[in-house]
Amino acid sequence: MSEREQRLERLNGMLRRRGFILPAFEIHGGAKGFYDFGPVGGRLRSRVNQAWLDHWLRMGNIVELSCPTVTPYAVLEASGHVGEFSDFMTVCGSCEEASRADVLLEAHHTNPDALKMDELQNLLDASKPECPACAATEWSPVEAQNLMFNTTIGAGSSGRQGFLRPETAQGMFTSFNVLFRHFRERLPFGAVQLGKGYRNEIAPRQGMIRLREFNMAELEYFIDPEKKPEPNLGDLGDLMLTLVGEGQEPSSMRLQDALDTGLIRHATVAEFIGRTHRFLEHVGIHTDKIRFRQHEQDEMAHYAVDCWDAELHGSYGWVECVGIAHRGCYDLEAHEKATGKTLRARREFDEPRTTVIDAWTINGATAGPAFKAMAGQVKKAVEDLPKDTVFPCTVIIDEGATVEVLAEHVKPNQKTIKETGEWYLPHVIEPAFGIDRIIWHVLDHAYKEDIKNDDKYVRMELSDKIVPVDMAVFPLFEKDGMGERAWAIHQRLCATPGLVSMYDASGSIGRRYARADEIGVPRCVTVDHQTLEDETVTVRSRDTGEQIRVPIDELC
Amino acid sequence: MSEREQRLERLNGMLRRRGFILPAFEIHGGAKGFYDFGPVGGRLRSRVNQAWLDHWLRMGNIVELSCPTVTPYAVLEASGHVGEFSDFMTVCGSCEEASRADVLLEAHHTNPDALKMDELQNLLDASKPECPACAATEWSPVEAQNLMFNTTIGAGSSGRQGFLRPETAQGMFTSFNVLFRHFRERLPFGAVQLGKGYRNEIAPRQGMIRLREFNMAELEYFIDPEKKPEPNLGDLGDLMLTLVGEGQEPSSMRLQDALDTGLIRHATVAEFIGRTHRFLEHVGIHTDKIRFRQHEQDEMAHYAVDCWDAELHGSYGWVECVGIAHRGCYDLEAHEKATGKTLRARREFDEPRTTVIDAWTINGATAGPAFKAMAGQVKKAVEDLPKDTVFPCTVIIDEGATVEVLAEHVKPNQKTIKETGEWYLPHVIEPAFGIDRIIWHVLDHAYKEDIKNDDKYVRMELSDKIVPVDMAVFPLFEKDGMGERAWAIHQRLCATPGLVSMYDASGSIGRRYARADEIGVPRCVTVDHQTLEDETVTVRSRDTGEQIRVPIDELC
Repeated sequence: MSEREQRLERLNGMLRRRGFILPAFEIHGGAKGFYDFGPVGGRLRSRVNQAWLDHWLRMGNIVELSCPTVTPYAVLEASGHVGEFSDFMTVCGSCEEASRADVLLEAHHTNPDALKMDELQNLLDASKPECPACAATEWSPVEAQNLMFNTTIGAGSSGRQGFLRPETAQGMFTSFNVLFRHFRERLPFGAVQLGKGYRNEIAPRQGMIRLREFNMAELEYFIDPEKKPEPNLGDLGDLMLTLVGEGQEPSSMRLQDALDTGLIRHATVAEFIGRTHRFLEHVGIHTDKIRFRQHEQDEMAHYAVDCWDAELHGSYGWVECVGIAHRGCYDLEAHEKATGKTLRARREFDEPRTTVIDAWTINGATAGPAFKAMAGQVKKAVEDLPKDTVFPCTVIIDEGATVEVLAEHVKPNQKTIKETGEWYLPHVIEPAFGIDRIIWHVLDHAYKEDIKNDDKYVRMELSDKIVPVDMAVFPLFEKDGMGERAWAIHQRLCATPGLVSMYDASGSIGRRYARADEIGVPRCVTVDHQTLEDETVTVRSRDTGEQIRVPIDELC
Repeated sequence: MSEREQRLERLNGMLRRRGFILPAFEIHGGAKGFYDFGPVGGRLRSRVNQAWLDHWLRMGNIVELSCPTVTPYAVLEASGHVGEFSDFMTVCGSCEEASRADVLLEAHHTNPDALKMDELQNLLDASKPECPACAATEWSPVEAQNLMFNTTIGAGSSGRQGFLRPETAQGMFTSFNVLFRHFRERLPFGAVQLGKGYRNEIAPRQGMIRLREFNMAELEYFIDPEKKPEPNLGDLGDLMLTLVGEGQEPSSMRLQDALDTGLIRHATVAEFIGRTHRFLEHVGIHTDKIRFRQHEQDEMAHYAVDCWDAELHGSYGWVECVGIAHRGCYDLEAHEKATGKTLRARREFDEPRTTVIDAWTINGATAGPAFKAMAGQVKKAVEDLPKDTVFPCTVIIDEGATVEVLAEHVKPNQKTIKETGEWYLPHVIEPAFGIDRIIWHVLDHAYKEDIKNDDKYVRMELSDKIVPVDMAVFPLFEKDGMGERAWAIHQRLCATPGLVSMYDASGSIGRRYARADEIGVPRCVTVDHQTLEDETVTVRSRDTGEQIRVPIDELC
């Protein structure tokens, strides 16, 4: 095992032992691709989620939505997931274990992920890779396997097919009209959603990187494609980022320069690249382990204008953790087509626009005698008819009555139409975050090993912004009232909104420091004999080891 | 329609129009039992969730977990859900719509919910209720329909049956050993989890009360059944609550008295009733619309010691929103039985206990010559064998070697065992909250209608603790720089952690106040000409209508 693999094994062992992240359902034999956030990790997950939410809400034109995870067939058919959300699968002829064809062929091709079904089939036939489960080499024909978890909504013959959502985005697209109304019909605006996403992986691997159930966080930002966004990125423009342009080597560049030179094709995409970088830094990702990689043309969906991934570097190499995609009007248009409903915004013209179009009016000489007192109303109705109307034709007049209009009653006419604005399909820019992958890299980057007394000494250098336990309280002994005093201080800390404290009375203070360092507690408070006399405690810093004496009242 | 139904219709209309709560997937024709939290409701949901979490974490011995929603068959078989989580269904012979048998029979029985399958069948045959969809009266035989959403984990023949969890609790029970280690093996402690639960209702109705996908929040609190909890409830004991004891009429009572008189059977159950009451009050539930109802013996699971529901009163009458159950050791024991793993806590004895048990030792006369130098090791191995061992028998000695021991090598022996403690199954007390139902009642209680200019004027009197929008900023006009100034103030408010502001520039200030009142914004800030001169704004209170002039710097 390489040094990197050994470190990964030690890190995973610690994360499991200390209750950060554990394989789910383990006492029942487990289930691949499912993880629990344990007594320490649960709080970490909450804090990263909250930090993400606060980060976007502060823009001032973003709201939070929460939509169901169970989703009817029609919604995911419209979005394209029923047709296209799939991997190529093949099944071992011996043990019947299913594998992803591209993964089997990793040793036989530089980028099997990009191969089409028939190319995968040919390569599989030619290279006969071994089954990872049983080492046999006979494979069933390659087939596309949809990756959505299937379910049925309702019972009996009233049951309808549904899926667990593969992303949170669709609920935000189908809510467009609600959002448009909420924002008083003024773009740009966005909606965010945090929640579970599901992907029924054929053969999950790589721990938190490929999960079947994961924590997602997406922003859908709706813009008017005809309104150029502000090209000056302000503060964000000065960020120095590692960018990997399409077909280029990584290079360090000011964000504003990347936009000005056209490497990043849209100012709002550039803005979100900058904001994403700031978020990652905020939760403790090391900035030298972040790069933004532009999608190749053939990697990008046909409708996409520009796509960048934020990749983070850690124990698994460079891993995509955020996707920032300019999706054009693809999604809203797809739901419009499938439902016949409109999902549009209105753009007012600076000046009203007049256009002259061909239409009809009545021929007074014939229509007057025919319609008598109703002639005025018939005229109005006829002038609203489109040019391709064929006469005779029945029109509805004001009182709701119908009237038969003959060809001889009408003549061609030209009509001037004045419009003050128009309805259009907004474009969407979507930053989509894989929260589990980000948390994994936060842990990976924070994990520090020192040598102490010939043993590895572990310290998690987690950011104060997301640390799962803010303070730990230790009674030197649980006697002479020190235990009660320490517990009272612990409870007072816990009562402070947003602060989490941990109480630990087992073993030597040194052992307790070590346990606290291992889960990244920034400050440890020790209650000793002196506390009982002068109401002060010792506060020891995780990162410096420094200990200072502090009055209890100044702890929080 | 009754006045109550009319009010409910207006309330629902407002909640939908203003983006609190909306039927999900509506443009695709909708799906019964699924709701979206919209641009206003999404934030409300987040804040109620956060308030719930903070409420329990401050106890100091509670941690947060997050487990998957997709759950393997084995876990839910062990918990009893595969066998028992069902409703009785019957299908219309004419339109094939499925209905719940007990719901169909509501007009024909006072409590059809309590009937067994054959009783329902007899009553259905006798009363022939009309199908709510098509009014036909022919019904298929009543059958038990499991209410879990079904799915398959994995693809092809590797696929395994799974379900969407019906509650969050199971992940916390199966994590018991992780929790026990985290809390340094010291009870009592608890775990909380917030997240989605699923129930594939046969025929959902009553809006947010019966959902197929819902927001749950559960606490599993593990206690030592032999350790009596503190009977003095402190502050909590003074709460005056409406309690409905088993078979009794509602009565107002001090919580401490309810415990002391034995109406509430366990001090920790009483404590959680008090804490639940405080939480409900904190998020804005009117305390005169809360009551705690004790389960009848036949309503309670056989293993339960005491169960109380918090019921809230609103547009649907009294509705169960929280269940507080003393579940004994049922859940941990069920998972132990199913998995063969232990889920136990350790209790140290005050004094070590010695017991004498029958066992074996070697017969020196025969074993000495037979085993020679190894005799000592064989002796040790033999003394560890249970009394029911049959000889000859193979034992493993220290070096891992095996040795055949014959009957003649051994003789009966008595062994003294000294034990310092014992392993036991903890008991569990579980407060389980239906967050959607609580949010529904928060909205119902906050909804106030006044008459203003002959029209209904709506004001949501939401608590500041959970209000979705804290402040709204209005420029008097969007000219002379007032729009830019107002937007800058709005952005500054948004940048304040935990604060959400809304910007509104459409229509008269009066209209904007009305819109803000309708979603419960406590304070509206108006930017006018004077703002540009002296950096002050008008702040208007939702509840009093009072307006005061405040320097911008003092807004937050």
